Amino acid sequence: MTRYVAPVQDMQFLLHDVLKLSQSGLPGHDELDRDFTAAILDAAGQLASDVLEPLNKVGDAQGCVLENGVVRTPAGFKAAFDQVREGGWTGLDCDPEYGGQGMPHIIGLATGEMFVSANLAFNMYQGLTHGAYSAIHAHGTPEQKQTYLPKMVSCEWTGTMNLTEPHCGTDLGMLRTRAEPQDDGSYAITGQKIFISAGDHDMSDNVIHLVLAKAPGGGESTKGISLFIVPKFLVNDDGSLGDRQAVSVGKLEEKMGIHGNATCVMNFDGAKGWLLGDLHKGMRAMFTMMNEARLGVGLQGYAAAEAAYQNAVDYARDRLQGRAVTGAENKAGPADPIIVHPDVRRMLMDQRSFLEGARALALWAAHMIDKSHNGDKDADGLISLLTPVIKGFLTDKGFDGAVQAQQVYGGHGYIEEWGMSQFVRDARITMIYEGANGVQALDLVGRKLAQDGGKHVMAFFEMVRSFIKENEGDETLKAQFLDPLKAASKDLQAAATYFMERGMSNPNDALSGSYDFMHLFGHTALGLMWSRMAVAAQAALTAGEGDAEFLRDKLVTGRYYMARHLPMTTTHLARIRSGSEPVMALAADRF
Amino acid sequence: MTRYVAPVQDMQFLLHDVLKLSQSGLPGHDELDRDFTAAILDAAGQLASDVLEPLNKVGDAQGCVLENGVVRTPAGFKAAFDQVREGGWTGLDCDPEYGGQGMPHIIGLATGEMFVSANLAFNMYQGLTHGAYSAIHAHGTPEQKQTYLPKMVSCEWTGTMNLTEPHCGTDLGMLRTRAEPQDDGSYAITGQKIFISAGDHDMSDNVIHLVLAKAPGGGESTKGISLFIVPKFLVNDDGSLGDRQAVSVGKLEEKMGIHGNATCVMNFDGAKGWLLGDLHKGMRAMFTMMNEARLGVGLQGYAAAEAAYQNAVDYARDRLQGRAVTGAENKAGPADPIIVHPDVRRMLMDQRSFLEGARALALWAAHMIDKSHNGDKDADGLISLLTPVIKGFLTDKGFDGAVQAQQVYGGHGYIEEWGMSQFVRDARITMIYEGANGVQALDLVGRKLAQDGGKHVMAFFEMVRSFIKENEGDETLKAQFLDPLKAASKDLQAAATYFMERGMSNPNDALSGSYDFMHLFGHTALGLMWSRMAVAAQAALTAGEGDAEFLRDKLVTGRYYMARHLPMTTTHLARIRSGSEPVMALAADRF
Repeated sequence: MTRYVAPVQDMQFLLHDVLKLSQSGLPGHDELDRDFTAAILDAAGQLASDVLEPLNKVGDAQGCVLENGVVRTPAGFKAAFDQVREGGWTGLDCDPEYGGQGMPHIIGLATGEMFVSANLAFNMYQGLTHGAYSAIHAHGTPEQKQTYLPKMVSCEWTGTMNLTEPHCGTDLGMLRTRAEPQDDGSYAITGQKIFISAGDHDMSDNVIHLVLAKAPGGGESTKGISLFIVPKFLVNDDGSLGDRQAVSVGKLEEKMGIHGNATCVMNFDGAKGWLLGDLHKGMRAMFTMMNEARLGVGLQGYAAAEAAYQNAVDYARDRLQGRAVTGAENKAGPADPIIVHPDVRRMLMDQRSFLEGARALALWAAHMIDKSHNGDKDADGLISLLTPVIKGFLTDKGFDGAVQAQQVYGGHGYIEEWGMSQFVRDARITMIYEGANGVQALDLVGRKLAQDGGKHVMAFFEMVRSFIKENEGDETLKAQFLDPLKAASKDLQAAATYFMERGMSNPNDALSGSYDFMHLFGHTALGLMWSRMAVAAQAALTAGEGDAEFLRDKLVTGRYYMARHLPMTTTHLARIRSGSEPVMALAADRF
Repeated sequence: MTRYVAPVQDMQFLLHDVLKLSQSGLPGHDELDRDFTAAILDAAGQLASDVLEPLNKVGDAQGCVLENGVVRTPAGFKAAFDQVREGGWTGLDCDPEYGGQGMPHIIGLATGEMFVSANLAFNMYQGLTHGAYSAIHAHGTPEQKQTYLPKMVSCEWTGTMNLTEPHCGTDLGMLRTRAEPQDDGSYAITGQKIFISAGDHDMSDNVIHLVLAKAPGGGESTKGISLFIVPKFLVNDDGSLGDRQAVSVGKLEEKMGIHGNATCVMNFDGAKGWLLGDLHKGMRAMFTMMNEARLGVGLQGYAAAEAAYQNAVDYARDRLQGRAVTGAENKAGPADPIIVHPDVRRMLMDQRSFLEGARALALWAAHMIDKSHNGDKDADGLISLLTPVIKGFLTDKGFDGAVQAQQVYGGHGYIEEWGMSQFVRDARITMIYEGANGVQALDLVGRKLAQDGGKHVMAFFEMVRSFIKENEGDETLKAQFLDPLKAASKDLQAAATYFMERGMSNPNDALSGSYDFMHLFGHTALGLMWSRMAVAAQAALTAGEGDAEFLRDKLVTGRYYMARHLPMTTTHLARIRSGSEPVMALAADRF
């Protein structure tokens, strides 16, 4: 009973009016004109709406099943996966040397948003493969790349990340999986991993597990961890599949949501693995995957909420209940559609203004990644700084948005048949996996903020400052966008200063405010994105270019974000400034 | 894998140190001394922990099943219901004339919190019966009371509320269920009702449906609605059960949570019904049930979160991961328990400080109800004003708390086996049923605020003002509690003033801020409750009475609420003051 339409017009606006992609001077970007990207986005959108979205509920209802050691995906998943593969979507932004289409990352992200909105659980099979592809691409030997990447680009083989164990997730120093060196240069991998998304399934010929394990001589901390490639089936020299390895699914987890994705307990019983990257430097290689995964999860957060929002809008327009307080608007009907009620609109505008801002931030981040791949160190620093914000803030707010979309349905939102419960249950995982959001906040405040002498956060502030300076000549824009942005940025700077002053003498003062800081940063970043969108929309309107109605709606939606979301920065700052005393005062045994 | 321990000490503190129940001068209250209430609370707590809590997960996993027209509750529910009944818990605060124990409402609420925390879905069977009991008690004829109440007090017969229909929930004017007058003075009731909690089940001998329907001559608006008693089995003159009526379960809804409660589509096919209260005045009688139900749902919101919180505390103490930034605290172990990390504590303190404040507000509200039953008009006005706040704010924040408790578990929180998902899924309904929270906000701003010339909100402000004045001599208390309370109350007054100034010329300005106002009111109310608790705790400490450790923890927890939750009032006020323009500017067809 749900539907999804890809926001192609909004993406086109971001790619061309805001980011001006084809003029960015990056290699291969000059051909990315409006028509070119429209063709890609339209095709991806159609696939998302027609093929993936109808399977979303099927995946939730059927889930994955473990039968005699084999994981079966929900009905229709395999055929759809073939269709995604055949369309070349899995290798869109992959290296042409291994069969990819060599598009910039930003195009992969835009189409990825659509696939996630349509079917989050389904898209994870491809998403995790992409992460494993990137790690092998960055750290693999030429032979490893040749062996694995072509099949992973096409998703004939899928990939996984094997990090977590029953007793450790965030604290990987405690992991117990062992890697024993063998005479042939491989390692025998033994241990149990949990929460392995897409750990096994029936949609690919092979599963390439990337497994964190401890090899002798590395010590017991995270520093001694290495990363290994452990294929489910060994690969013969001619590329054909050989023996099945001692890699098995212990069980499938019964989860709150994303039922269509197989979350496996994986047992490795002396399976052959090959070192990926340097010995005892596995954390570095793992972070190549992890950073990509974190940005991907940030995208999931708002993409799931986008689908929920679209359906909430439909319901709000269809459901007749009560009359507008300012006079009936549907006089011929028994009642007005609930979209006339201010509080229903508040819910929809809350979601809409967040979603469009989140999309701008995600595409901007992807653009930074493309720049950093082209050697731009400043862009690399900014994306490193903002990765935890994108992951933590966009998933928290995305979940809130899905809950709000469900709320628009009233009682029907609670009934599984209507599909809104699934959006909420699916979105919930995004706040947890690839580092729970509290860990993102810790990464932001404990590491990223002071990285390279605080250079990157300074660059962010400078970006805000110079943007305001360039544009404050327009009075309306100044009052509606730039002044609130300036206030938010000031709150963010005050918080950063507080951390710097207090963090040394009492690190708990910084860590107690880390979560609020992540949100404060997120709001400021979205305030900046909205201001950039407003400038671009205003410019297009003035020039008489583009769809005037769309551009005016953009300004209206942006004003809502600035007026209704951005005031949160004040509260976040007040909480941060209350320090660690209220947080830490209660003794642990008195809770 | 979950557990629950009733917060008896906290309730005793509220009943005796804060509300000073036995000195309140209300009839029957003087005997409610510490020992007396402790005995009741301990016994209820034991029942909750030992009998109801273990069935919580069973109820979720098995759900209710409709077989050949008969609803079967999960294994163990019936035996537990018998135990609750036999202990006299169902009639604790009911009229002794009909077999109740005649306790004040506040005692029923305290024990009710425990039962809800232990098993929300299970407790609904009793809760809805209590609501129906109250409506019949308030509006029934002597014969109706004699016929139905004794069996409902004992829950041998359970009750329901039949309001919603497929096309109408909030807007009851649209309802289609018809009541045709019969020669014997009864009515033939025909129509379909949906979302009927406990609509049918196998735990009672009869189900007494209270059904809203339209009888001839009442017109088409809500004003023409009447309320009818429609028993599943007719009752013979001697009280024995007669024929089964034409009342049937069309289907059971598959819901996001509260699987242990049967949510029924009910079909009435000319079933005999008897008018309850006056003809065409059904809304009034219905609101007796509804107001009680709304307070009950507010209680559910925080009670579900309480259970989630307790388990999150256990997990945070058990789970070893990482080291405290200020130095290892569990040197002998491989890592520190995660409760050492500031952000984990932030989550726990967020929950704890909300929960204790919510409990104070709920018990205070129950005390107001007891006063109003004793003829206190001011208390009645206050509770009328605060009912939507209690329902809307406590369920929103309770849900947030359950989500936060789940977050403490990291990945394990998403796995059904651990039980945290159920708390979230169950808590979610509380924001929706008995009037979605947006409807509560509308009731608050559109009706309650201006009721009796705004007298009740003025009384609330005066209560805050005089409390501050009485206690501001204590400097520490003033800085930590009274000053933040004063600031919050000022924000609330500014918002109310804004509504008064703008509401007349543009009602959308008030309605666009209604939701924020509800939360602003909720925070201010909890700020008042925390200030009252702080005064009581400080007084007991000074007097050297009570458990000093408990009292100091109370002050610590209260400080957290004032420092970390209360700053939200600033943001709510800023949003309210942004008016309706950003909310209403987008055309309905442009979403």
